[in-house]
Amino acid sequence: MQLPTTDTDFDTLDAWWRAANYLSVGQIYLMDNPLLREPLRPEHIKPRLLGHWGTTPGLNFVYAHLNRAITTRDLDMMYVMGPGHGGPGPVAAAWLEGTYSEVYPDISRDEDGMRRLFRQFSFPGGIPSHVAPETPGSIHEGGELGYSLSHAYGAAFDNPDLIVAAVVGDGEAETGPLAASWHSTKFVDPRRDGAVLPILHLNGFKIANPTVLARIGEDELISLLRGYGHEPIVVAGDHPADMHRRFAAALDAALDRISEIQQTARSSGNATRPAWPMIVLRSPKGWTGPVEVDDAPVEGTWRAHQVPIGDPRRNDEHRRLLEEWLRSYRPKELFDDDGVPVAALRDLAPRGTRRMSANPHANGGAVLRDLILPDFRDYAVDVPEPATATGEATRILGTFLRDVMRRNATNFRMFAPDENNSNRLDAVLDATDRTWNARIEPGDDRVAPDGRVMEILSEHTCQGWLEGYLLTGRHGLFSSYEAFAHLVDSMVNQHAKWLLTTNRIRWRRPIPSLNYLLTSHVWRQDHNGFSHQDPGFIDHVVNKKPEVVRVYLPPDANTLLSVADHCLRTRQYINVIVAGKQPAVQFLDIDDAMTHCRKGIGIWQWASTDRDVEPDVVLACAGDIPTMETLAAVDILHRRFPDLRIRVVNVVDLMRLQDDRAHPHGLPGAHFDALFTTDKPVVFAYHGYPWLIHRLVYRRTNHENFHVHGYIEEGTTTTPFDMCVLNRIDRYHLALDVLDRVERIRPIAGHAREELENILAEHTRYVRTHGEDMPVITDWHWQGVGID
Amino acid sequence: MQLPTTDTDFDTLDAWWRAANYLSVGQIYLMDNPLLREPLRPEHIKPRLLGHWGTTPGLNFVYAHLNRAITTRDLDMMYVMGPGHGGPGPVAAAWLEGTYSEVYPDISRDEDGMRRLFRQFSFPGGIPSHVAPETPGSIHEGGELGYSLSHAYGAAFDNPDLIVAAVVGDGEAETGPLAASWHSTKFVDPRRDGAVLPILHLNGFKIANPTVLARIGEDELISLLRGYGHEPIVVAGDHPADMHRRFAAALDAALDRISEIQQTARSSGNATRPAWPMIVLRSPKGWTGPVEVDDAPVEGTWRAHQVPIGDPRRNDEHRRLLEEWLRSYRPKELFDDDGVPVAALRDLAPRGTRRMSANPHANGGAVLRDLILPDFRDYAVDVPEPATATGEATRILGTFLRDVMRRNATNFRMFAPDENNSNRLDAVLDATDRTWNARIEPGDDRVAPDGRVMEILSEHTCQGWLEGYLLTGRHGLFSSYEAFAHLVDSMVNQHAKWLLTTNRIRWRRPIPSLNYLLTSHVWRQDHNGFSHQDPGFIDHVVNKKPEVVRVYLPPDANTLLSVADHCLRTRQYINVIVAGKQPAVQFLDIDDAMTHCRKGIGIWQWASTDRDVEPDVVLACAGDIPTMETLAAVDILHRRFPDLRIRVVNVVDLMRLQDDRAHPHGLPGAHFDALFTTDKPVVFAYHGYPWLIHRLVYRRTNHENFHVHGYIEEGTTTTPFDMCVLNRIDRYHLALDVLDRVERIRPIAGHAREELENILAEHTRYVRTHGEDMPVITDWHWQGVGID
Repeated sequence: MQLPTTDTDFDTLDAWWRAANYLSVGQIYLMDNPLLREPLRPEHIKPRLLGHWGTTPGLNFVYAHLNRAITTRDLDMMYVMGPGHGGPGPVAAAWLEGTYSEVYPDISRDEDGMRRLFRQFSFPGGIPSHVAPETPGSIHEGGELGYSLSHAYGAAFDNPDLIVAAVVGDGEAETGPLAASWHSTKFVDPRRDGAVLPILHLNGFKIANPTVLARIGEDELISLLRGYGHEPIVVAGDHPADMHRRFAAALDAALDRISEIQQTARSSGNATRPAWPMIVLRSPKGWTGPVEVDDAPVEGTWRAHQVPIGDPRRNDEHRRLLEEWLRSYRPKELFDDDGVPVAALRDLAPRGTRRMSANPHANGGAVLRDLILPDFRDYAVDVPEPATATGEATRILGTFLRDVMRRNATNFRMFAPDENNSNRLDAVLDATDRTWNARIEPGDDRVAPDGRVMEILSEHTCQGWLEGYLLTGRHGLFSSYEAFAHLVDSMVNQHAKWLLTTNRIRWRRPIPSLNYLLTSHVWRQDHNGFSHQDPGFIDHVVNKKPEVVRVYLPPDANTLLSVADHCLRTRQYINVIVAGKQPAVQFLDIDDAMTHCRKGIGIWQWASTDRDVEPDVVLACAGDIPTMETLAAVDILHRRFPDLRIRVVNVVDLMRLQDDRAHPHGLPGAHFDALFTTDKPVVFAYHGYPWLIHRLVYRRTNHENFHVHGYIEEGTTTTPFDMCVLNRIDRYHLALDVLDRVERIRPIAGHAREELENILAEHTRYVRTHGEDMPVITDWHWQGVGID
Repeated sequence: MQLPTTDTDFDTLDAWWRAANYLSVGQIYLMDNPLLREPLRPEHIKPRLLGHWGTTPGLNFVYAHLNRAITTRDLDMMYVMGPGHGGPGPVAAAWLEGTYSEVYPDISRDEDGMRRLFRQFSFPGGIPSHVAPETPGSIHEGGELGYSLSHAYGAAFDNPDLIVAAVVGDGEAETGPLAASWHSTKFVDPRRDGAVLPILHLNGFKIANPTVLARIGEDELISLLRGYGHEPIVVAGDHPADMHRRFAAALDAALDRISEIQQTARSSGNATRPAWPMIVLRSPKGWTGPVEVDDAPVEGTWRAHQVPIGDPRRNDEHRRLLEEWLRSYRPKELFDDDGVPVAALRDLAPRGTRRMSANPHANGGAVLRDLILPDFRDYAVDVPEPATATGEATRILGTFLRDVMRRNATNFRMFAPDENNSNRLDAVLDATDRTWNARIEPGDDRVAPDGRVMEILSEHTCQGWLEGYLLTGRHGLFSSYEAFAHLVDSMVNQHAKWLLTTNRIRWRRPIPSLNYLLTSHVWRQDHNGFSHQDPGFIDHVVNKKPEVVRVYLPPDANTLLSVADHCLRTRQYINVIVAGKQPAVQFLDIDDAMTHCRKGIGIWQWASTDRDVEPDVVLACAGDIPTMETLAAVDILHRRFPDLRIRVVNVVDLMRLQDDRAHPHGLPGAHFDALFTTDKPVVFAYHGYPWLIHRLVYRRTNHENFHVHGYIEEGTTTTPFDMCVLNRIDRYHLALDVLDRVERIRPIAGHAREELENILAEHTRYVRTHGEDMPVITDWHWQGVGID
């Protein structure tokens, strides 16, 4: 490794670093007197000190060096900061680079702006203490740890000219999601994808504990990183001048190697996986901060994690220490009399969109290209009459997605934890392979380095990749077993919060929605039983702000096509689509499906028996299996009680159940009442946990009369129909419930109830003995001709 | 590495393996004719074939070898199977060892029992297809992947004589939780803890894709495992006789090394972390199964994952292949005429509790020792009068936990993702250190190999360790930032399902509850803001079966003590306790706290103004901050409207809100109505998402009159009181809501409303300018003397 040429101006680099550090400390502490024109007084100090200093100087150090490399090499570079608690750092850098004042004109690049910059940090009405959506150049909120690498890779895919520098903190490195994401090296095509440069930052401590990777032998550490597929370069120390020279050399070596890898692959066409370079930066926590406070060591210890000097507003000695610390950066050399960074610092930053704080990829909506979508109607199942054809909904969706994949070769990817084919989306593999850049052996099924179906058995990595891909303006779909979507609950929280926040930031442009296809759902876990049954991801998502969440339960293939087409066109949402993969009855032809999906909820006249009169009872359903069971229940009831007036309401867009004041998709009260009546019993068969329906209709006139059937954590190893029976959502339980409700209004012949109860009892005996479902599906005859 | 001595009877070992494989295939396919006394006929085959063959022969192979080692060395050994999809394997082994028939007498160890064994597998009314609670010897459900190693370590902690063999599948190895858990090596004390022997099983494929670790170079793989802190021994091949000899040698070498490590550490007292041995087993997926079916290769490919021969019931050639496969194990040599395993096989198994299927640690309730608990009343805060003292609830709890730790030196551990001190439980560090067996440096704060506060920045690893610890009969507490409990949502699902299932298995003995202390909660994320605000873990947990979940919201320190004491005594629950860590007003002295917690819900007479009359309005509260704001609202109202009759109801045990038919803690209707009236407005301040309260009281008489305030995803970087204001749960919004409700019944002076609205407006201005809360806490004067 060669040290950089002597013409590198390390003094200016160091000055830039000192400026970023000064601005970081200022943000944590100061309300006023930003240039220290006068000695610090109590009223200059914020009343509450909230921020994280410990990791910040390291982030700033790396920022300064990346800037040098960008300028020297004219790089297109993004910076993902795993230790995003160090929020003041990138804010300081963006202000130094001028970007901050461009996107927030009130925070000008002068003394007044500096005062506002300081005051707003972690201050009511200001900005968060972490790297956040408000931070220009960031796609990565630093609150929850573990996703820096997967975000970085997501950004690099299909961006061949982009280099994503990703600092991984040694705290973050202990998390599962981060540990798994190192293996992203096996999913990069050096010909077509950009590069990720991981910088493992060992500052030795978390909040209170040492970190694992900082406390194993260097031999073990190097061994581990090689095992991940990297060739690490270690830079360790604490002397600034020395560290500048060595880090610059390491960065040059890493970037040379990346360039060489990419050129070789691109000129030869050979994508063989290389050992990608990475850097290990070992530097003190709270580097350049106070060495000791109140006789306790601070720099280089866990005490530097948050606010190293605790009470400078009330404690004179603390205030003196703080001033000494701030002055140690020699602000007079860094800012002119107006508080503007001196020319040498301004010149060090790259220009325009080469500034990492202004890189367009980090504002994905700005580089977004619309998907080119085929006409989904071309993939429709033929349904000459309702409930006559059968089909596998996700398999049919797969043919549509195959052509989406074909038409958007650098703008769309699919993600799944080894479940793409199990979820019956295998048609997409006719358009592209699965991404795979480890060893390929004869007999492997359609794996290749340039495939765009991304499968690793890590929901966290899939989610992180997809988020990175979306946040840089591209499109995607995550298909998962329904139950295991919970693995990414917490990631969904963070993404929802990101979307909500960016809705309120003018310069952030809308990005494509995060689309989930949840299949292999609770009702069809024949292979896997109890452990794979959980429809609660919907509940989790619905707790987020209504403006960012959408939930769809298309009952069949054509409605699924229509819903998927819609979701792929949307921006800034989390769309959850739940759909089955098993052969199932098809209800609607494509025109009716479109009409139904456009409404999101509607009366199925063809399935109802209440023509032109007020119904006796409403049977409502949401989800494929509940819809089938509901229609079968109608059939059972209609045969026995031909004069019973039943209305069938099907719900595709779950949010339609809410009030229009509670959700943008909500239905006005009058419209809701027109569907569900104001006083008739409503027997509702719902895909998930039943209480969600109660919650959604809580404010509706008729909610007292809603009787919801759903999953109640019953059933394990049994047949699909028996699963419904055990959870009381099958046709017989639904029909019996209808009889119960109607009986309160008018007499019901006793023998009909007894007959249904007998069938249920016989069912259990049969299933336990034969291991298969009784033949319970009857032919339906609907007089209807269309949907309402 | 030395090959085992020639007196090892590899023929018998192989016969045992063949028997286990035969029994595994039989479980997947056969309903009848278990001994193949006649040629297979269609009716012998199950109508639906559900199971996973691919991983099973490898699991059986390891089982046979572990048995040999147990017998030779008289080991106390458990077996955790990460690839738990291979459910037939351990069931077969348990039956061969006799345990299965002991715990399930109807599944006798003879032909009739074998028939039942086969039929019940993945059959309605039978057992799941994965390793499951029903499987003797297992503490690990094989449904969701990623937790085998952390479970294994959890079992090994404080069990010095136990060796836990843990097979990690190469699919599972791609998950985040598993990837993180390798670093458990830094948390083992070889003097005091048992050993984990990881066996990384590379069979090369997941459902449809190759696996990462099977497709990187062996140099990278070895490097990776050394980086994790292991010295790997590789055994690769497919020839049984050869593999037997080599695996036996590898196992001997690993066990010798473990023994040597432990002896050295225990005799010298030096706990220095060694490179623990592990084994890499590279063998074909579906080993010994059909090589080819329908002209496609099966053994050694992803096609072997589930049911390799698809349709032997209808397809004659498939049936012939299946019979050939079964007979390849030579069942006549393995079972006598009655279907009993031949003596040589019976003798190979260890005896009694040395059998892994009968190891008492794997039925944790059987070895459980009650915690020795100090009297929690001794740790109480002095509260001479309600709302006069202040205290930090979790800090006080910490003093109680310190003494729990002292009195239960091998029976209790605490777990936290580097948050123990941040959560103010630091008193426990006076009783023990943090567990740490990596390098220790001067200045480190109370870390030691034999510490029992387990901190790694991986919620998944903490949870997995704790689960393993509980499942082997010990006790523990997991403290976490509230928002990040969502990281383990999916693990909680699996544990809840495990508990629910074991409640129905007679031989499984109750294990200690899984206790969560969620603190650093949504209302006090001053340092971290929006990304750290999410109270939805409660909602997630409440979706599980009522019989296994409990949720507590103690409003202050003394109630927290009482609740924690209770939770530590319980079995088979998931207890979620939410409590604050910040200095807060204390409401109840210890006697009142006990009374209140015993009831779980109650009228606070001392805070109410409706003495002996029907109230005009009920103010209800659950959670520390909501309780404080509610009492302040009462104060505000009482000063202005002294004749307004207000009743205060505080809820500690959230499940009390439900009906007694819906939850074991549920309150009968009449009792509920007595608290909340049947017709008066109820203004409810709740800690979390407000709709949960609506859901819980949905069936109550007065539910229409419940007006719930809670977290609505508002607020980020601001002051604690402003957080309340933004989410409309502060005293002024509560008081205004009361005025709204009461106004419908009787007139309210307009100026009072205006005054409160003005205070709120002034508040916002003040906070945005000063960065701190307005002084809004007033002195309360309660005439009351006790609680109801």
